[in-house]
Amino acid sequence: MVRNKEDRDTFADPAIENLLGAIAFDSAGLVPAIAQSAATGEVLMMAWMNRDAVRETLATGYVTYWSRSRKALWRKGESSGHTQRLHDVSLDCDGDALLLSVDQTGPACHTNRPSCFFRRVTDEGLAVISEPVEA
Amino acid sequence: MVRNKEDRDTFADPAIENLLGAIAFDSAGLVPAIAQSAATGEVLMMAWMNRDAVRETLATGYVTYWSRSRKALWRKGESSGHTQRLHDVSLDCDGDALLLSVDQTGPACHTNRPSCFFRRVTDEGLAVISEPVEA
Repeated sequence: MVRNKEDRDTFADPAIENLLGAIAFDSAGLVPAIAQSAATGEVLMMAWMNRDAVRETLATGYVTYWSRSRKALWRKGESSGHTQRLHDVSLDCDGDALLLSVDQTGPACHTNRPSCFFRRVTDEGLAVISEPVEA
Repeated sequence: MVRNKEDRDTFADPAIENLLGAIAFDSAGLVPAIAQSAATGEVLMMAWMNRDAVRETLATGYVTYWSRSRKALWRKGESSGHTQRLHDVSLDCDGDALLLSVDQTGPACHTNRPSCFFRRVTDEGLAVISEPVEA
């Protein structure tokens, strides 16, 4: 499904609170979020969100995660420019995983590869299946 | 990418041990695994694997998870018949998430929906976007 790059979805407080009430956050207050390209269906990355990250993502229409290493909100692309515009957010059956349909600007991975899932299992071990794109 | 339904990938011990050595399991010994349809690109579900689940999945070519609620290996489809044949396994940049490309037999979700991500955020709250398929 190809989307208009100018589209992004933002949501008002009632929709955000409704979602927050349905998420089964883990004992650390986090939920895994899978980012998938709205244009190609490619799975780009998986990261984590806390309540504030969910709230900010839906309110702004740009994806914000929670960085477990930095213990801070991680506004995806804030320094790199490689933002993720939000299209759709789906919650799974038991409420413990989010699927984000996004328009990815530039590479999703900090290695400058389109997807973070660039190491594939082969009989010869892990093979790198994509190269960094030009900056 | 459409795959032959008869194809499934199995891996020998060296490839399995190579992958296990590269995975950054969490403090509970688990890693999240995202299952994506090889045929359609649809994200089907997210569940968890421990070392034994990873090993069994790669050795048999059928996806086995770790059930956190039952604290046991969960051979996907063992009772329902809704198995996931393995095509490809990819590891992300920091080694803490797996992406499985699978041939899903029947619905992936225990609610009999094709995907577990069937609740979508809308301005009116969470909307159910797919119905259970006939058994």
